[in-house]
Amino acid sequence: MKISKRIEKMNFSSIRKLTPLADEARRKGIKIYPLNIGQPDIVTPDTFFQGVNNYKEKIVKYSNSEGITELRETFSKNFRKWNMDILPDEILITAGGSEAVIFTILSICDPGDEVIVPEPYYSNYDSFVKMADSSIVPVHTSIEDGFHLPSKEEIVSKITSKTKAILFSNPSNPTGTVYTEAEIKMLGEIAEEYDLYIISDEVYREFTFENTSFISPIKFENLRKRTIIIDSISKHYSACGARIGLVATKNEDLKMQMLKLCQARLCASTIEQYAASNLINTLESYIEKVKAIYKSRRDVMYEGLCNIEGVTCFKPEGSFYIFVKLPIDDGEKFSRWLLTDFNHDGETVMVAPGKGFYQSEGRGINEIRLSYCIDEKEIKRAIEILNIAIKEYNKLNVKY
Amino acid sequence: MKISKRIEKMNFSSIRKLTPLADEARRKGIKIYPLNIGQPDIVTPDTFFQGVNNYKEKIVKYSNSEGITELRETFSKNFRKWNMDILPDEILITAGGSEAVIFTILSICDPGDEVIVPEPYYSNYDSFVKMADSSIVPVHTSIEDGFHLPSKEEIVSKITSKTKAILFSNPSNPTGTVYTEAEIKMLGEIAEEYDLYIISDEVYREFTFENTSFISPIKFENLRKRTIIIDSISKHYSACGARIGLVATKNEDLKMQMLKLCQARLCASTIEQYAASNLINTLESYIEKVKAIYKSRRDVMYEGLCNIEGVTCFKPEGSFYIFVKLPIDDGEKFSRWLLTDFNHDGETVMVAPGKGFYQSEGRGINEIRLSYCIDEKEIKRAIEILNIAIKEYNKLNVKY
Repeated sequence: MKISKRIEKMNFSSIRKLTPLADEARRKGIKIYPLNIGQPDIVTPDTFFQGVNNYKEKIVKYSNSEGITELRETFSKNFRKWNMDILPDEILITAGGSEAVIFTILSICDPGDEVIVPEPYYSNYDSFVKMADSSIVPVHTSIEDGFHLPSKEEIVSKITSKTKAILFSNPSNPTGTVYTEAEIKMLGEIAEEYDLYIISDEVYREFTFENTSFISPIKFENLRKRTIIIDSISKHYSACGARIGLVATKNEDLKMQMLKLCQARLCASTIEQYAASNLINTLESYIEKVKAIYKSRRDVMYEGLCNIEGVTCFKPEGSFYIFVKLPIDDGEKFSRWLLTDFNHDGETVMVAPGKGFYQSEGRGINEIRLSYCIDEKEIKRAIEILNIAIKEYNKLNVKY
Repeated sequence: MKISKRIEKMNFSSIRKLTPLADEARRKGIKIYPLNIGQPDIVTPDTFFQGVNNYKEKIVKYSNSEGITELRETFSKNFRKWNMDILPDEILITAGGSEAVIFTILSICDPGDEVIVPEPYYSNYDSFVKMADSSIVPVHTSIEDGFHLPSKEEIVSKITSKTKAILFSNPSNPTGTVYTEAEIKMLGEIAEEYDLYIISDEVYREFTFENTSFISPIKFENLRKRTIIIDSISKHYSACGARIGLVATKNEDLKMQMLKLCQARLCASTIEQYAASNLINTLESYIEKVKAIYKSRRDVMYEGLCNIEGVTCFKPEGSFYIFVKLPIDDGEKFSRWLLTDFNHDGETVMVAPGKGFYQSEGRGINEIRLSYCIDEKEIKRAIEILNIAIKEYNKLNVKY
């Protein structure tokens, strides 16, 4: 009675691993500023709850395995705003962006296959790829380059006969990087030359700041059939718990194959699908307002971090994360210490250790990921506390 | 740019495959009695909808990956009713029973591994097992034995070094069979002797008729650590579209490993979890009433089928399905024909071809699965139409 080798190789969420320590700190009465998790604090639009309340069926029935028509039409309309021509029939509704990535990987990777992913990457990608007994081959990016992509040669050097796809989140979780048109074109060239799928995780598409503009590979005629888009209402509409996402592709055969997985698990939550459909009635101004909030918070956080001695960071171009190098020995040790042995006037911060976003040994050790899902005043205070904590940690460390 | 061998091997749902033909028939104005699908027609308890309406949070946040405490407590209480001692901590909430089976298989099977399943079986098991690049090894059961298990020797003869588990649904979808205590004990003996997991899919647990009583393997002291229970609110509470299920095990290590999968996909739908928690407030009389309805329908359907010449069937002991052998050449051809070329006074029936529930070549060809998720009057009428259809089909067939 053994467990599978597959599950043995998977990791516990590095972000959620600290939760028990945080619970313990809270029990001691310590206030924690949560900079660790991508759970938006912004209110979910009323249209979502109206959608829930509008559900008047007497029986909560299975819906279509591919997702209800209304919702696929909603998403299709939404894509049009981005000049992304995706028909309702090219969309499959999934239980969040997570299931969308899982279904994609299961549909294209066999055991031993490889997926190229710029590193640091969203840590759950690792589990999703391992579910298919495949592995991530990381392409290194560094904080000094704002986590932008390395040269084409360097990426190509990672390709083997087992490579099936290039997967990335753009705007990026965890780095906040937004790829330029040139970068997307380069990935497209590589995908064409080596016959790979491009999996474009666009769940932060709406959140780009300043002159940065988001580019989806599906916009390029030559990449239309090889692009797989991952999307979700979780971040854009602060509705993470609804578990409504999608996978979209103009590759009809691939879509049909993925439908087998959709049918096997029957359907995504019916009521949430209707609620999400009603989100189309959310005024465009909601997203604009939310984007402005994140931009302003980013500025506050970035400025605060720049004022801490020895911190290296770059100004995020999108999403709501910032990836930072700290003047400390070990981000994981530091993250735990913040919760177990530190507080400043009864307050501390919770951060995500950088190591969890890397596969390559030795990388990310003195880095952390911060999210800005709390208000500006709190961000300011949290960064002050972080500054104090770094100093205290290093002082104590000397004595260890 | 290929698809995976894994997905290529998976099948489209044999039940949902006929949907486009049914849609076409409906467009022509034909009334269809849906005997094909396990979508209960019984109203979802008000307590579920109250639970939905009671959700007053302003943000639909991620919930715990293992499921909200309230819901795990609800399920734990529910198990106690069956003298099944399962603690909240031994439960992981999943997106329906489907995700529960998927997580189980991914956690115990590596590529090439095998799972023993009595055949005919719930056809989606096949996809779930294939997701892990493993395969189902069927144990044959026959309509003549009421689909009860064959001898221990016969089951043991299917075991290889690759066998990891025995998986079954009890009460059974698709046959309506309920395993006796002796059968569960036999499976338990085999599992102990060959060190296998027992995956007990109990989503129809409440629906057993007459003197048949449901037995879970977890009740036996010696099987507690090797039993994995699959459950769901879908059938018992007519809430299929909520996608709330669970996997439960007293094997702490296995549970912790499965938690990795739960964490990777973040959580099950938050609002639905709260709504399901409130189901504990559903009076026991609801389930009793529903059970009585299904029992009565079963009697009507069974009696009707017995009156059709040449039909072989056995009286189902539980769930809400009956598996029938018809005096026809091919259940799949017949199922299609019912939708494309037949109607009696503008009415026809939709059935699930038996073949889709078998893996063994040549089995189930003249069998079909019928569900009784419509009211008694309609069942009576549907069976009359089925009788007429069989005669007409055979008459025409001669002429082909």
